[in-house]
Amino acid sequence: MLRHIARRLGSLHGQIQFSNGLKGVSPNQLLSKETHRHLQSSLETISPISMMSLWPFSSQPRDFSQPNSSWSPEMRKVYDHYIALCDTDSENGEKQRGPWRKLPSYNRSIKYATAGIHLSKLIQAKARLFTRNVKEQGATFEYVVFVNKEEKRCVCVFQAGHLLEGAPGHVHGGAIATIIDTVTGSLAGFLSGPIMTANLNIDYRSPMPLGSVVLIHSALDRIERKKTYITCKVTSTDESKLYTEATEQTEQFCY
Amino acid sequence: MLRHIARRLGSLHGQIQFSNGLKGVSPNQLLSKETHRHLQSSLETISPISMMSLWPFSSQPRDFSQPNSSWSPEMRKVYDHYIALCDTDSENGEKQRGPWRKLPSYNRSIKYATAGIHLSKLIQAKARLFTRNVKEQGATFEYVVFVNKEEKRCVCVFQAGHLLEGAPGHVHGGAIATIIDTVTGSLAGFLSGPIMTANLNIDYRSPMPLGSVVLIHSALDRIERKKTYITCKVTSTDESKLYTEATEQTEQFCY
Repeated sequence: MLRHIARRLGSLHGQIQFSNGLKGVSPNQLLSKETHRHLQSSLETISPISMMSLWPFSSQPRDFSQPNSSWSPEMRKVYDHYIALCDTDSENGEKQRGPWRKLPSYNRSIKYATAGIHLSKLIQAKARLFTRNVKEQGATFEYVVFVNKEEKRCVCVFQAGHLLEGAPGHVHGGAIATIIDTVTGSLAGFLSGPIMTANLNIDYRSPMPLGSVVLIHSALDRIERKKTYITCKVTSTDESKLYTEATEQTEQFCY
Repeated sequence: MLRHIARRLGSLHGQIQFSNGLKGVSPNQLLSKETHRHLQSSLETISPISMMSLWPFSSQPRDFSQPNSSWSPEMRKVYDHYIALCDTDSENGEKQRGPWRKLPSYNRSIKYATAGIHLSKLIQAKARLFTRNVKEQGATFEYVVFVNKEEKRCVCVFQAGHLLEGAPGHVHGGAIATIIDTVTGSLAGFLSGPIMTANLNIDYRSPMPLGSVVLIHSALDRIERKKTYITCKVTSTDESKLYTEATEQTEQFCY
């Protein structure tokens, strides 16, 4: 029984971490491919409440991709658009399956540290996801990822806060790379299971002003054996302006 | 006279921003190429004290690339190694020119915002450089960049803090991209003047544990007209382990 609970916990961790869109090394790498498959189906039947109750750090982990007061009207408008395309309850109480699904996003991953040299003691207690490491709402990465399983693509709405500055008044190239890696990694992990980023290739087409709300469109290009190729482009919300284009190649990973 | 001061201030801003290693859009883009050339030579004769006195936000801007208590012995050892190769005062009081120079690093750039939609009011007062936006020492990016003008290369010593997490216990791929963009951009800007990043291509070879101290070696590959090509590799401090390889292409930029 304990083993079953532990296994279930581990599995949910994996799903939750995946939902975070963690990349670099994908958190999904912590799960075997079989476990991932098993959970991807079993999670369909688990309600958000039961997922939360299994969260090891708190009974109610906060989903940071929920609207907050820092969101601009533009950000909220896009969010509302995609939320309306997600699962909904019909008048007769039945669940209607929409084409999109919103991924939750937490600020911590599993209590797991294989490494860490100087800061190893801190890691256990204080480590936080890079994109969710600042408490002040709106200061850094405000984002939410919607995934469309059938079309093998996802869309992220991203509002760039004032602490992401590179050139004065503009978003740091590294911050753009970070949100791209997060989004493309989420999609690759969703489609291929445990993965890690092997290559990230970014073309910066136009400077992005701080405070911008942009769309990050990510789609599957192809899967070749253990490699998953993802394309990505960053545009204004009306898609008239192209800020960035990128490709990401990931590789399957199993412990 | 006022115009002269303003021009001088603007120039120093440019140099200071450049020293920050800002990228994405390089802060140097704010200076004309001629101004940049003029200042690169004139700055040779300006002492740090006089630079500080011209800083518009405070009389003593803090250089974040100075040693602090969060630095591991490994980080400090590499720092001391390169500091010893920088300019030194000899016994007779004369300045001896070393092959390396340490670049200072601040957490703010010029009070300048061309853009910013939702957060435009915040940008003026609260914007901070992405790599220096967390006050807690050791929590995110601890780094210092040394540049070797003659050899057209630079070395960054980087200690990855616990708030840079991607996969559990490991550094987020976006954080690695950020420090690479910062370092390669510093070198490209140093060699070519006002630039902006056009392409960043990263191969992740091995996961980097949180708390690691690594070296980021960056060197000029070639300059073709307005394009500067930089290579980069991230290794352990003894250079026995390769974490990441990257190339960056920048383009000259003038307002």
